Amino acid sequence: MKSYRKELWFNIPERRGFINITDHVVQCLTESSIREGLCLINAMHITASVFINDDEGGLHRDFDRWLEHLAPHEPLDRYRHNDTGEDNGDAHLKRTIMGREAVVAVTDGKLDFGPWEQIFYGEFDGRRRKRVLVKIIGE
Amino acid sequence: MKSYRKELWFNIPERRGFINITDHVVQCLTESSIREGLCLINAMHITASVFINDDEGGLHRDFDRWLEHLAPHEPLDRYRHNDTGEDNGDAHLKRTIMGREAVVAVTDGKLDFGPWEQIFYGEFDGRRRKRVLVKIIGE
Amino acid sequence: MKSYRKELWFNIPERRGFINITDHVVQCLTESSIREGLCLINAMHITASVFINDDEGGLHRDFDRWLEHLAPHEPLDRYRHNDTGEDNGDAHLKRTIMGREAVVAVTDGKLDFGPWEQIFYGEFDGRRRKRVLVKIIGE
Repeated sequence: MKSYRKELWFNIPERRGFINITDHVVQCLTESSIREGLCLINAMHITASVFINDDEGGLHRDFDRWLEHLAPHEPLDRYRHNDTGEDNGDAHLKRTIMGREAVVAVTDGKLDFGPWEQIFYGEFDGRRRKRVLVKIIGE
Repeated sequence: MKSYRKELWFNIPERRGFINITDHVVQCLTESSIREGLCLINAMHITASVFINDDEGGLHRDFDRWLEHLAPHEPLDRYRHNDTGEDNGDAHLKRTIMGREAVVAVTDGKLDFGPWEQIFYGEFDGRRRKRVLVKIIGE
Repeated sequence: MKSYRKELWFNIPERRGFINITDHVVQCLTESSIREGLCLINAMHITASVFINDDEGGLHRDFDRWLEHLAPHEPLDRYRHNDTGEDNGDAHLKRTIMGREAVVAVTDGKLDFGPWEQIFYGEFDGRRRKRVLVKIIGE
């Protein structure tokens, strides 16, 4: 069995944003030389997400507005987590909806995707450097 | 290490619906001859879901009503994704709540499940043929 | 390839609660002797969750209040699942938001975590003994 590990670093200049990281993960898979296995991609921070969906700007605006409706950023005193001095109580909830991780099959040296699947980093408490972990195991 | 891959195809005649696909996945596991490992089951489409829950009709009606409350299908102009000509903006959000994938342990040649765990395909933009990927790795 | 399996049992005295199970999973990893691979941790019950987030009491109160807002326990006749004689229709929905499972990379014999990642068991229909499965594969 082979294994491969890499950290991808991102710095989103706003509080919230989505980045298509599919090409980064494909590059990892190429470096790993793994042909058959599983690829785990996860946010290493608990106010960010890795998820799979469509690379379409309107959808990303829908996600952002929907998440703000389900877990509003303000008022800050809405969240007991913010009593600790943080202002990111909402970000923990938003990341929970979007998910921490994706697991993708590796087949014949490729990410085994349907026609529209793309991997995204979702940031809900940005303006600082944060990490995504890529771990691939297989042969 | 062994690996196994299969696509399962479904065509749900309505816009939304749930199908119990556990028997299909058990059949895949039998074909794979894998006794110890991990089994990934994921929707290959971004408006559908694979999830694990109870095979109980009342619960499925609860899921459907709840998702429609959290992310209503109409009015269509509620979603910027629908500005592209699509009418499935809601389906992307519903699938996000239900999840893209399940990872199940394989132990002694069986899906290592608790007493009520069953695997479902969740469709939120049906009336066409769509796919689920089953990937199993192990020994 | 090596594989390891263990069931962890919990009995939360209230209907709902969160327990930090990270130390239990670290103990499993030590017992497994696996240095590189993937670790699956999943609830074996469909009204409970395994998720990764922050070990901060205010955040846990936020999760509890938020989930109760998104899927209220009462009135019981809100849920068709409860027509079967159950009173846990809400628990199936709450668990869906929080997720069934987490997959964690194993690197150099350790859970490959970011600075604040901790693993939790989330209970939404407690007051009885319930299980979490830990399955690790690798080398």
